[in-house]
Amino acid sequence: MESPTAKLDRVVKEIADEMRQRPDRGEVASYIPELARVDASRFGLVVIDADGHVAAGGDSETPFSIQSISKVFTLTLALGKAGDRLWQRVGREPSGSAFNSIVQLEYERGIPRNPFINAGAIAITDLILSGHQPREALGEILRFMQFLADDDSITIDEAVAASEQRTGFRNAALANYMKSFGVLSNPVEHTLGVYFHHCAIAMSCRQLAMAGRFLAHAGRNPATGLTVVQKERALRINSVMLMCGHYDGSGEFAYRVGLPGKSGVGGGILAIAPGKASIAVWAPGLDANGNSHLGRVALEALTKRMGWSIFGA
Amino acid sequence: MESPTAKLDRVVKEIADEMRQRPDRGEVASYIPELARVDASRFGLVVIDADGHVAAGGDSETPFSIQSISKVFTLTLALGKAGDRLWQRVGREPSGSAFNSIVQLEYERGIPRNPFINAGAIAITDLILSGHQPREALGEILRFMQFLADDDSITIDEAVAASEQRTGFRNAALANYMKSFGVLSNPVEHTLGVYFHHCAIAMSCRQLAMAGRFLAHAGRNPATGLTVVQKERALRINSVMLMCGHYDGSGEFAYRVGLPGKSGVGGGILAIAPGKASIAVWAPGLDANGNSHLGRVALEALTKRMGWSIFGA
Amino acid sequence: MESPTAKLDRVVKEIADEMRQRPDRGEVASYIPELARVDASRFGLVVIDADGHVAAGGDSETPFSIQSISKVFTLTLALGKAGDRLWQRVGREPSGSAFNSIVQLEYERGIPRNPFINAGAIAITDLILSGHQPREALGEILRFMQFLADDDSITIDEAVAASEQRTGFRNAALANYMKSFGVLSNPVEHTLGVYFHHCAIAMSCRQLAMAGRFLAHAGRNPATGLTVVQKERALRINSVMLMCGHYDGSGEFAYRVGLPGKSGVGGGILAIAPGKASIAVWAPGLDANGNSHLGRVALEALTKRMGWSIFGA
Amino acid sequence: MESPTAKLDRVVKEIADEMRQRPDRGEVASYIPELARVDASRFGLVVIDADGHVAAGGDSETPFSIQSISKVFTLTLALGKAGDRLWQRVGREPSGSAFNSIVQLEYERGIPRNPFINAGAIAITDLILSGHQPREALGEILRFMQFLADDDSITIDEAVAASEQRTGFRNAALANYMKSFGVLSNPVEHTLGVYFHHCAIAMSCRQLAMAGRFLAHAGRNPATGLTVVQKERALRINSVMLMCGHYDGSGEFAYRVGLPGKSGVGGGILAIAPGKASIAVWAPGLDANGNSHLGRVALEALTKRMGWSIFGA
Repeated sequence: MESPTAKLDRVVKEIADEMRQRPDRGEVASYIPELARVDASRFGLVVIDADGHVAAGGDSETPFSIQSISKVFTLTLALGKAGDRLWQRVGREPSGSAFNSIVQLEYERGIPRNPFINAGAIAITDLILSGHQPREALGEILRFMQFLADDDSITIDEAVAASEQRTGFRNAALANYMKSFGVLSNPVEHTLGVYFHHCAIAMSCRQLAMAGRFLAHAGRNPATGLTVVQKERALRINSVMLMCGHYDGSGEFAYRVGLPGKSGVGGGILAIAPGKASIAVWAPGLDANGNSHLGRVALEALTKRMGWSIFGA
Repeated sequence: MESPTAKLDRVVKEIADEMRQRPDRGEVASYIPELARVDASRFGLVVIDADGHVAAGGDSETPFSIQSISKVFTLTLALGKAGDRLWQRVGREPSGSAFNSIVQLEYERGIPRNPFINAGAIAITDLILSGHQPREALGEILRFMQFLADDDSITIDEAVAASEQRTGFRNAALANYMKSFGVLSNPVEHTLGVYFHHCAIAMSCRQLAMAGRFLAHAGRNPATGLTVVQKERALRINSVMLMCGHYDGSGEFAYRVGLPGKSGVGGGILAIAPGKASIAVWAPGLDANGNSHLGRVALEALTKRMGWSIFGA
Repeated sequence: MESPTAKLDRVVKEIADEMRQRPDRGEVASYIPELARVDASRFGLVVIDADGHVAAGGDSETPFSIQSISKVFTLTLALGKAGDRLWQRVGREPSGSAFNSIVQLEYERGIPRNPFINAGAIAITDLILSGHQPREALGEILRFMQFLADDDSITIDEAVAASEQRTGFRNAALANYMKSFGVLSNPVEHTLGVYFHHCAIAMSCRQLAMAGRFLAHAGRNPATGLTVVQKERALRINSVMLMCGHYDGSGEFAYRVGLPGKSGVGGGILAIAPGKASIAVWAPGLDANGNSHLGRVALEALTKRMGWSIFGA
Repeated sequence: MESPTAKLDRVVKEIADEMRQRPDRGEVASYIPELARVDASRFGLVVIDADGHVAAGGDSETPFSIQSISKVFTLTLALGKAGDRLWQRVGREPSGSAFNSIVQLEYERGIPRNPFINAGAIAITDLILSGHQPREALGEILRFMQFLADDDSITIDEAVAASEQRTGFRNAALANYMKSFGVLSNPVEHTLGVYFHHCAIAMSCRQLAMAGRFLAHAGRNPATGLTVVQKERALRINSVMLMCGHYDGSGEFAYRVGLPGKSGVGGGILAIAPGKASIAVWAPGLDANGNSHLGRVALEALTKRMGWSIFGA
């Protein structure tokens, strides 16, 4: 009989093969010029189970721009600094709107609905920045990622950061808008600078799945044995990921995949099977909501075949 | 050492005692005159585990108006009739708005965001009604509840139904608005009549927890041995409950409780611990989002003490 | 040299001829089935100057459904009954939204922005109805129109009223929504019944221009010598017509025509040149905002050639 | 019998006296720190009739910050440069929202509703700036104001401009938002710099009334004999002033005053009585919509006593 590890290896390989052959690949993000150049045929999938076994398929070692997936880690870092008073600056409800909508901010006096829409992530970045120079804050975020992934080679793709900085007018609108309500406390340019740069961190699926392990295991990274956050906090970060991790497609992701997950416009998704596995998938083509199309399809197949949905087995 | 059953019994009793003594009871719903008369000091909690063991505390046998909790069961019934084409009439994303908001309907041409806001539940009712007389459709819904709870004594509180019918202008606005976009196919009065009546079904915590068991066990009711819905569908209903079951407080419920759940303005909540238990709680006082205040507090205590959060154990 | 009267006659004839030949006729309203049957090639124009001279062109004697133009007269009637406390139930600002939008009502707790969007006109109708049977209120409105036009032959087109009553779900949504906020005090069906019927009053351009004369002459109808409303009130009704009379195309109408005016989806427009003339035009084809396309074009030509813009001569 | 000129002089003096004594003075704008220092007891009124007679009352020679009144003149200038294709970048409908709302921009893809809300005025400034350095564009605007007022002593209050530049985050949000839709073609900082500076132009009531004379006289300044814009354009600028000149209080201004007018948060209002007079009033206290409270009260008294309403005499 097939062992659980063998099954996982087989399922990951099968899915990588299936995805490679699918013609429906979505559209590569075009609004950040540097991202538009990425090859839509790429696909990577890495699953790391509770024992640390790594099941890898496709382009599992190729770094890609993690973009909004970084928001899971900046939220974690900011909670460590500010604790629950963080929730005075950012809500934790689904927004019912697109990732870059400004309408809700006007109706709710500059308080973003959650930490995973752009406005909320900018507010979180501002909180991390507080009292530091942008360079220091950014260094802290990067070192946190390297620590979580246990890999010092992780870097920021400066070309992507510069590309977004040149064209990120909508994020500048969100930041200035929050600033007008006193929600940001640093100079807008500083906050945006750090935000654009942490979104431009480049990681492979393997690195990303490593970095997410503490969320799958109640706050503790089994690889390092270190507790990153207390158990309760890890569970709550997972809940925010499930509710808000895919913008206006969060309901769809929960319905089809059944795992907490956070997507980025670079085509990556980090998904967490609590107690079971940390999962990273990468497929650059996006759906209409700005989430990786084949990434979601692959995760749906994975949770179904492995019986990992949090909504029942 | 304490057995799991003994522990569950103890925890349920403890929570019932704690809740009875808390001064913060929320506000009993006032917009339906008949509900405003309910005694805010009532509290009931019933947990039925996988083996069918019933742990009960407080007013566990007193019937209350299940109100919007009925929407879980009408969704189940409508999926059985219409299958996935149901999702052409109703979305499955959180709305980011109050339970009775009409704004989203205008921007999205009469298609409600999900089956658990009022507009969505009215559209689901219209789907069940299709081709039937209101009396027949209502009979079908009631018999379905009796079948799920294995209890023929469940009835509709006609005084509550009449009270809502006299004052339900906002629901009439939602129904007429959807009708103008062709989303409803029956006469508005018929659809609203059935809707007001199924919301007025009265059940005790014990009956409600019984009726929810199929959702905790992959679509099969362990008490009767009957499969109510296929496994995949049960999981997906749970996902919609988590994402949308508490209106604009769904994120908060996921964050604090960590279980799929559906609230009603009568003060009840049905919550599902997949693979573990079906849970019903009742405390008439509501919070600002229209969800039972102590119901949520009790469930937060329960999942924490039992380690039942779906986001990690 | 041409006398002013001769010039007016000539200009009206010229415009009627020009309009008859234009190929761009707009789209006849389709959402009220009975109106959809009207012949798009019809065109009528009547101007009555300060001396009572009637300049007529085209189908000036054919009755058409005045629809929302009736709102000018119900506002006048309601101001006579309720005086300025009417403005506690209805605002007097442009809405920035379509004629049948419900969004603003939600954000402003059921108080319509002005008396000329559908919601506002329904609230005004409710005010006229107060304490009467629908039949009496409707009789009062009809007699007021006959009195103003000095013509007892004006009637209600019952087929149009019945057609709208069968299909007016969006207006039913608006009425129920306001009712839920306590803005309406009569049964919703009564208020809507009177509303649908006064919108179905049929009048010719000649009758309509006659009825509007009191607005062109500071509240006094020069034909009858009777003061309909005091001067100040007449001026203010004109101001509301200018600001709100063409829904989301009010700015465009002011920019191009430069006169207070009120349109109806039947293709009619009543326009007022203060101190100079009362004007009625009819062309059934509508533009994207639901206002008569050629009606507006004709009025633009008229004010330009006669030098009647209120914004400078 | 009193001559028209004597009557005007008397009425202006009376109103200035009445206003000086009123206790209800509104609230001086606080969001621009430099403006918050202005003395709320100031009041000035200047009316210049068709013959060039100047009737002055109160602080008629004290310069104040014209703020948004400058938008009338930048619109005039931009129409001279771009002609009617200006209307592809900015609409001309009332917005139904506050002066600094961003909601409408999201729903209408970055195109502001009209040239007098902040977003629209920023887009107009961007159009004037096109192909120039900020300093040149600003010089052009200032020289245009000096030319219209026939007074080279008009200057920009640099302290006010700097104050707004430091705190104008909401305007920066609007500008960045439009930039993201490609509605602005210059660097955001350049456009905002020019915008903040032309809003900081300081003028007295006398200078402002002089500058507005071309709008009262079909595009021609009777003082200089020069045609500033063609007649049609002058009328249309007046229409946009009436529809949109007082933000979300435009309907109220039209209802009470009955003249095209444009307000600024410095407490000034420019009003136009077509064919009769150019009027400037200044009272620093604002109402809830951000318009001068006593300025509006004074204008209401003036039009009533002089019989100048455009809605009937």
